[in-house]
Amino acid sequence: MAHFFKIDPAKPLSEREVEALFHSSTDGFIIGGTDQVTAENTAFYYERLMETDKQLFLEISHAEMVLPYADQFLVPMVLNSPDAKWVVGKFVEALREFSPHVPFKRITPLGYVILNAEAKAAKLTRANAALEKKDITAYAELAEHFLKLPVLYIEYSGTFGDTELVREAKAVLKETKLWYGGGIKSREQAAEMHEYADAIVVGNLIYENFEEALKTAEIVR
Amino acid sequence: MAHFFKIDPAKPLSEREVEALFHSSTDGFIIGGTDQVTAENTAFYYERLMETDKQLFLEISHAEMVLPYADQFLVPMVLNSPDAKWVVGKFVEALREFSPHVPFKRITPLGYVILNAEAKAAKLTRANAALEKKDITAYAELAEHFLKLPVLYIEYSGTFGDTELVREAKAVLKETKLWYGGGIKSREQAAEMHEYADAIVVGNLIYENFEEALKTAEIVR
Repeated sequence: MAHFFKIDPAKPLSEREVEALFHSSTDGFIIGGTDQVTAENTAFYYERLMETDKQLFLEISHAEMVLPYADQFLVPMVLNSPDAKWVVGKFVEALREFSPHVPFKRITPLGYVILNAEAKAAKLTRANAALEKKDITAYAELAEHFLKLPVLYIEYSGTFGDTELVREAKAVLKETKLWYGGGIKSREQAAEMHEYADAIVVGNLIYENFEEALKTAEIVR
Repeated sequence: MAHFFKIDPAKPLSEREVEALFHSSTDGFIIGGTDQVTAENTAFYYERLMETDKQLFLEISHAEMVLPYADQFLVPMVLNSPDAKWVVGKFVEALREFSPHVPFKRITPLGYVILNAEAKAAKLTRANAALEKKDITAYAELAEHFLKLPVLYIEYSGTFGDTELVREAKAVLKETKLWYGGGIKSREQAAEMHEYADAIVVGNLIYENFEEALKTAEIVR
C-alpha cells in the first residue's frame, strides 16, 4: 500500500512546501502534468525532488520532459481510448525517435483507464469513460494477463471515483498493481480509496489545500 | 527455430493430406482463417489435428471459433492498426463476454504487424503497412519491452516479405519470438526466411501446391 504525490512542474511550490513534502509519510513523487510543461520546469522540480530518498518517477506526456538523468520514467498508455495512437502509438513514435538510446529498464508503462469523461485527458484521447463493472474488470484482466502491465492506473482526474468500481478492478488483479488518482480532497477520502487500491496518488490538492494534502500521506505512516 | 502449417477451416483437406501433414517435419499447426470460418468447420479440423503429438494452436478471429476443449489459443493484436479496436479492443470485448470463464493460461496474445497493404486483414484493420526499418524495430521493441508479448508476428499475407525488415526486427528481440507468415511458395523461400525468424508459418501453399508445402517443413528436420 502506497501513497504518492503528483507534482505538476507548471505549478509553483515554495522551498518550504517542498521540504514539508519531503518530511511527509508519502512513499514518493510522480512529476507529471499536461499544460505549460517544459524541459525547464520539469528539470527544476526533478532536481529539487531528487534530493529525497523516496521514490521519484518522471511521467512523460511530452518528449521535452525526457530528462536523460532521470532514474524512473512512467509512460502512459490509455487503454480505453478508441484511438490506437493513445494506446501504443505514442510508444512507437518515441521508440522511433529515441532508438537506440531507450533505457528500457528504467521505463514503466502505466496502463490508464480514464473514468471521468470531463477530464482534459479523457477529451484529448476520446476515452470511453462510461464503463460498467464488467468493462473495468475486462480492462484489468487485459492489463494483468495479456499486456502484463506492472500498473493499472484508474484515473478520475478531478472527481472522486466510484470505490465499488475500483474494488472490482482490484479483485481480478494479482501481479498488476492498481494505482488510483483523482479527486482526493481529504485524509478521509485518501484512507477510503486506499482500502481498495495498491497506491493512491494525490495531485491537485497540493495546490488547493496544502495542509490537507500533507495529511493524506499520514494514511501510510 | 520452428515451422508451422496454418490450416484454414474453410478450405478442404483430404484424409490423405492430413496424414501427410502429420508425418511431415513440421512443429505444429495453427488453425485459423477469416472467411466462412464456422464453429463446425473449426471443430472438424481441430478434432482431426488433435490426434497429432505436434503443437496445435487455435487462432481466434471470431467468437464462434472458441472451442472450450482447445488447449492453446492464439489471439491477435494488430499493433500497426490506427484503430484501438484491433489493438486491444477485441480482447476487452471478449473478456467482457466470456468472463469469468477465460482460460488465461491457455491464451497467447500474438502481436501482429501487417506489412502487405493489399491483404484483407490490412484493409479490415486499416493497418499502416508502409513501414521502414525504424518503424518495424519500434514495433518489435514495443512488443518486447512494453507489452512483453511472447510472439511478434510479421504478416505479409500473400506476398513474400522483405527479409531485411525481418532481420532488423529480429535483431532487437530477445524474449519475444518472431514468427513470419506470408507468401512462402517453396522450400527455398521457407529456408531463406527461416534464417531470420524464430518460426515460419506456411498457409496458402497447402492449398495451392500441397507437395511443395510438405517440402517447406523439411527445413526443420
